[in-house]
Amino acid sequence: MDVPSGTPAGTPTPGPGDPRIARLSLNQWTTREWSLREAVEGCVRAGLPAIGLWRDKVADAGLAESAKLVREAGLRVSSLCRGGFLTAREPVARTEAIADNQRAIEEAAALEAACLVLVVGGLPAGDRDLPGARERVAEALAELAPYAGAHGVRLALEPLHPMYCADRAVLSTLDQAIDLAEPHPVGQVGVVVDAFHVWWDPYLPAAIARAGERIASFQVCDWVLPLPADNLLARGMMGDGVIDFRSMAAAVEAAGYVGDIEVEIFNADVWAAPGDAVVDTLKRRYVTEILG
Amino acid sequence: MDVPSGTPAGTPTPGPGDPRIARLSLNQWTTREWSLREAVEGCVRAGLPAIGLWRDKVADAGLAESAKLVREAGLRVSSLCRGGFLTAREPVARTEAIADNQRAIEEAAALEAACLVLVVGGLPAGDRDLPGARERVAEALAELAPYAGAHGVRLALEPLHPMYCADRAVLSTLDQAIDLAEPHPVGQVGVVVDAFHVWWDPYLPAAIARAGERIASFQVCDWVLPLPADNLLARGMMGDGVIDFRSMAAAVEAAGYVGDIEVEIFNADVWAAPGDAVVDTLKRRYVTEILG
Repeated sequence: MDVPSGTPAGTPTPGPGDPRIARLSLNQWTTREWSLREAVEGCVRAGLPAIGLWRDKVADAGLAESAKLVREAGLRVSSLCRGGFLTAREPVARTEAIADNQRAIEEAAALEAACLVLVVGGLPAGDRDLPGARERVAEALAELAPYAGAHGVRLALEPLHPMYCADRAVLSTLDQAIDLAEPHPVGQVGVVVDAFHVWWDPYLPAAIARAGERIASFQVCDWVLPLPADNLLARGMMGDGVIDFRSMAAAVEAAGYVGDIEVEIFNADVWAAPGDAVVDTLKRRYVTEILG
Repeated sequence: MDVPSGTPAGTPTPGPGDPRIARLSLNQWTTREWSLREAVEGCVRAGLPAIGLWRDKVADAGLAESAKLVREAGLRVSSLCRGGFLTAREPVARTEAIADNQRAIEEAAALEAACLVLVVGGLPAGDRDLPGARERVAEALAELAPYAGAHGVRLALEPLHPMYCADRAVLSTLDQAIDLAEPHPVGQVGVVVDAFHVWWDPYLPAAIARAGERIASFQVCDWVLPLPADNLLARGMMGDGVIDFRSMAAAVEAAGYVGDIEVEIFNADVWAAPGDAVVDTLKRRYVTEILG
């Protein structure tokens, strides 16, 4: 992390108030070793105006305290991660999942998060009925969307890379996410464009345009080869991989998205680095790789 | 391999002449330790009517000798793997790739293969222009399709799982393969439906129907979790993973495909097992998992 490959030598790090980082958000799992308080303080030190929170970190700090910390720091909460896991077949597990998502909606409301990210879940163990699992997600969403609306929360359906279809998310493309969102009011159900998950899609430009005001979150990190043995940790710093962020960011902007751009990296090397150094790098990479 | 999980106890292995295996083909990389001659002999012993060949194995045996071996054994050649790797940007590399594909077409003609499978290639090193790479595939195909037609060979575009988009194939979905094939005569350019690569696609049933007579090859193997560290070896025996082969096979049949169904497994455990045992298992799994 000290000398990130691909960053032009001498690229100055944007500081607090720099308009180039006026929409840059730190997803707090990028600096996973930090507590919520440390992440909030790190954002303030770095001049980042927004943060993406995770429920486990919020729970550690306490919901009310978390809301107070971000509010007093003047940070926007660009997203809360995450609800979802809605593919259970058994009634008890399904009821528990709905209840957990209702709690997540309440937490997102308390945090005034711009959206609650939903990772919809994979196939139940031993189950091969992929259309059935997808149908159960649609049914659960029909229950949760009004609940979110009543709490002023926007759900954000996140398509995950198809390599996670079996075990993490049967929602695999942006078009599929839009299909799932469309029956619901745009303020209740949006979609996530996460570069890592969708960059490969041959129909992505059209899907982004189609998503339009459904886009509730834009997340970035890079596809870096070789994939690590644990493919959940395959997400790299922008500029270290193969994704053309400028084109994607331009498409997302052309679709009308004006919200924060959140850097969410799951990567053992990034997690091992000091948080301030990671934030420093991601600010510079954001400028060079995304703003272009 | 001795006691394959998921196979009903006592499932008898279909023998030579059994109509249930009248369309079953062994892709020879499934029994990678076998030479071409050994694979041909293994198919004959097992009563398999068809084999999918690989160019490296054909080269080892000699082209004329390979053609003679399969012809005298009475085997159909369900496919020749593979041509492709058409994404090079530099003129010299591009010219070499076209020439290599022309040789592959000539080999497919000599072997009377039902098709020549094309794995189109990933992004060139250091390149992030995915649409550009895809465009170069289309351009190369425009050169190769008439050459294939002149040799009576059908090219078969194989979409690979999106996890291989960066390094193996910028062709990522069946719809994209059909888009690429459509400008060309159906006898010159078809598509491969490989269960492992496309099972996750939410639009797969529609894409298979759309493919119709473009389907030049149907390949099967399973998606088994966890993925191994080398994700090229993630392909498992049918029944060991999450893919619902029956639905997919029914859709492929409804689309009009009447060709062979080829079992192509890249898997360290399968490769370590004796070839005859692997063939025995795949025959039983074919009956239980695909014919249903």
